[in-house]
Amino acid sequence: MITVIKIGGKVLESEQRLEAVLSAMSRIEGRNILVHGGGSSATRLAEKMKVPVRMTDGRRITDEVMLDIVTMVYGGLMNKRVVAGLQAQGINAVGLTGADLDVIRAHKRPAGLVDYGWVGDIDQVNPDALIQLLDQQVVPVLAPLTHDGLGHMLNTNADNIAAAVAVALADIEPVSLVYCFELPGVMWDPGDPSSLIRDIDVGTYEQLRANGTISGGMIPKLTNAFDALAQGVKHVIICQESALSSLETPTFIGTILTH
Amino acid sequence: MITVIKIGGKVLESEQRLEAVLSAMSRIEGRNILVHGGGSSATRLAEKMKVPVRMTDGRRITDEVMLDIVTMVYGGLMNKRVVAGLQAQGINAVGLTGADLDVIRAHKRPAGLVDYGWVGDIDQVNPDALIQLLDQQVVPVLAPLTHDGLGHMLNTNADNIAAAVAVALADIEPVSLVYCFELPGVMWDPGDPSSLIRDIDVGTYEQLRANGTISGGMIPKLTNAFDALAQGVKHVIICQESALSSLETPTFIGTILTH
Repeated sequence: MITVIKIGGKVLESEQRLEAVLSAMSRIEGRNILVHGGGSSATRLAEKMKVPVRMTDGRRITDEVMLDIVTMVYGGLMNKRVVAGLQAQGINAVGLTGADLDVIRAHKRPAGLVDYGWVGDIDQVNPDALIQLLDQQVVPVLAPLTHDGLGHMLNTNADNIAAAVAVALADIEPVSLVYCFELPGVMWDPGDPSSLIRDIDVGTYEQLRANGTISGGMIPKLTNAFDALAQGVKHVIICQESALSSLETPTFIGTILTH
Repeated sequence: MITVIKIGGKVLESEQRLEAVLSAMSRIEGRNILVHGGGSSATRLAEKMKVPVRMTDGRRITDEVMLDIVTMVYGGLMNKRVVAGLQAQGINAVGLTGADLDVIRAHKRPAGLVDYGWVGDIDQVNPDALIQLLDQQVVPVLAPLTHDGLGHMLNTNADNIAAAVAVALADIEPVSLVYCFELPGVMWDPGDPSSLIRDIDVGTYEQLRANGTISGGMIPKLTNAFDALAQGVKHVIICQESALSSLETPTFIGTILTH
């Protein structure tokens, strides 16, 4: 069993939260791949550099300067923070962008109504390179960056990377995909912890989306997640990072997606 | 034969120069490891962020903010520029800091007359991890960063990394170490191209150093280089990056270090 765990950028900004995640990870049975985000740190660096930050629908417009910033922040600062943290816990790890080992190729998203700039939509994942690392007891740590095979890095959403990697590996061995999230999981009412939905199937999802219960940033996340399930990923789970340590135990709190 | 090639940060700042190096590299027989520097880009980013840059004897004082900057610039921006560039030439590559695959451990240099901050002196190189990558036809691309095994990254001189890696691998198979340099090689008179020293042994080096012909930044570079030779590295070569394409041919221009 391979577990692909996606953590948000915010987790990496707190030494304690990161340490807790990495130590929980070390206790998950089987083999792990970590995918991290990193949005707010890139914004902070841009502000320090007096580079304007432009977002559309929560997605970053990535011009040339912004591409350098995300390559630095995601591929350098945050990625190495995770890798050095894992090594400190005695877990061998390697930080990768899509360019490293040619692990994820993408193409620059064509300009439509919005020109997102150097943003990549994933074309292919190289599962063999990841399996080879896992076979060597190495945890791959993926930054939200891909490449186009022509020498350009591309800014790529971490949720999409996690899903694409999980799907590509699912052809080879059973895969769980875990999205760590700011809330305990999918909720009827985000303000009420008791409204956590413990299991959700695609039918219920479509209903909740139609009546507006699920909206905003949850929609691409859940669409991604159900797509991964449809494409052979065995389990998709949405939970807080604090629940990672109870994954696969009866005390686990989070949302499990089902067909 | 393994060739460890060190290129300076300036090469990475010019797309044309980088492309020329990467294409020359692809024609070198045997297996290659690339080590890159990156000092001036880190300085430029620091200036944009209004972070003071402090140097002592050409070495960077690395406080916490500067460590984040070099981790971003060396481990993110420059490293991925090289990796994506190699992939574009059809050469599989992986970018590594010392933390990745635990490839180079170091300790924080103790504060003496100068407190260099988060600067690492190398303790050990993991040659097996590098050999494994080479066996898979992957070029390791090393950024000038190491880690202490306790979760901290450390800023580490690229010349030292190249030498330590070459020495560690020399126990396993024959290694050439090539330092790319701004000048054609070691010169009697840096202003006169005809004064290039084509071969230099350690005795001549000591003499030229004593009489002041060799001074400044060349001293640590050559001391490093002769140390590597003494520790089993087969060839050490100092040349301009444009000479990489004629390495091991009669038209090669550069300095070859001998015992």
